[in-house]
Amino acid sequence: MNLKIAVLGTGSVGQTLAGRLTELGHSVKVGTRDVASTMSRTEPDAMGNAPFATWEAAHVEVQLTTFADAVVDVDVIVNALSGSASLPVLQSIGAQRLADKILLDVANPLDSSKGSPPTLFVKDDDSLGEQIQRAFPDLKVVLADGDHTVFVSGNDSTAKQAVTTLLESFGHTDVIDLGDISTARGTEMLLPIWLRLMGSLNTVMFNFKVVR
Amino acid sequence: MNLKIAVLGTGSVGQTLAGRLTELGHSVKVGTRDVASTMSRTEPDAMGNAPFATWEAAHVEVQLTTFADAVVDVDVIVNALSGSASLPVLQSIGAQRLADKILLDVANPLDSSKGSPPTLFVKDDDSLGEQIQRAFPDLKVVLADGDHTVFVSGNDSTAKQAVTTLLESFGHTDVIDLGDISTARGTEMLLPIWLRLMGSLNTVMFNFKVVR
Repeated sequence: MNLKIAVLGTGSVGQTLAGRLTELGHSVKVGTRDVASTMSRTEPDAMGNAPFATWEAAHVEVQLTTFADAVVDVDVIVNALSGSASLPVLQSIGAQRLADKILLDVANPLDSSKGSPPTLFVKDDDSLGEQIQRAFPDLKVVLADGDHTVFVSGNDSTAKQAVTTLLESFGHTDVIDLGDISTARGTEMLLPIWLRLMGSLNTVMFNFKVVR
Repeated sequence: MNLKIAVLGTGSVGQTLAGRLTELGHSVKVGTRDVASTMSRTEPDAMGNAPFATWEAAHVEVQLTTFADAVVDVDVIVNALSGSASLPVLQSIGAQRLADKILLDVANPLDSSKGSPPTLFVKDDDSLGEQIQRAFPDLKVVLADGDHTVFVSGNDSTAKQAVTTLLESFGHTDVIDLGDISTARGTEMLLPIWLRLMGSLNTVMFNFKVVR
């Protein structure tokens, strides 16, 4: 099934997802704050990733547009923004444009203002997924995170099934539906050990598997 | 190597660890607040576990004693108390008796006062492991948690090695040293997703494996 998908965010997560979704035959737009500014950057980002224009040159079928234009007439919106940018950007797009679309949320609620490793700006009595769902009650928010085992949280069963199908098309065979959007608390709270494992193992080439 | 070990706590975690350590040839004492009271209970606990006296009858080689007596002349202390009881009980034992012993900490910082699933009484900017270490600077606190992959955190390398050897004698082959006691924040924050997985999978027969 060919879907129309908007990926919000031009960082490495947005690039990776937009590229993979395009390969799978979906029509992908990438949303950014200011198209000219994003395309004019020539320096790698803080993590050493090439500027967006370099990636775009290799993915000419992906249209770069404003956040608000990106979400027009799409089936699925992917939130590949930073955790702190997520709510402000969605608010700038506005509830009317977002309406009852599916939001596949992969943003991490990291707070890097207090040093490294970063802490979270939500704790286990709330989650960024819930904050987005509360701000946009009609939006079908589905948090999905994980690699070996992927954890899915959301209030709308149909939206979760659509996201699960998308994840399976990515090659994921172990997708666990944790329940409603409040279960995003569990998934988001995996970040603290993930950050320590990255420090201890000195690589990001690992992931969590739930062994049953 | 035969070790002298004190297990603090008579609940199911304390019983399981004390039983397994005894099987492995170690000399085990179990500590409780009031020996007569613990032995006089005849009802199962809230989780349906048999009362301690039933377990003790099948493990006569394990001595039940007060918290303070349990830690006298032992090599390793195992904290199998509830998270909220941990600091008060350790304070009742006193810093002098605990001195520079190894504390193998498996307690979970759960707060069940706000409904189910419980939240944590520390968030990712602190951990129960660190609270214990701060309260008893000379104690060699080693947090160990996990099953398929076991995560170990602590400031004292020798104590971590002793605990790792003990874990390996339990049959654990995948033990990851995350770093100093502050890395307990990551391990303790696994609880929120563990609680949701228990609800979603409807079993406790699962665990986390770090796939590299």
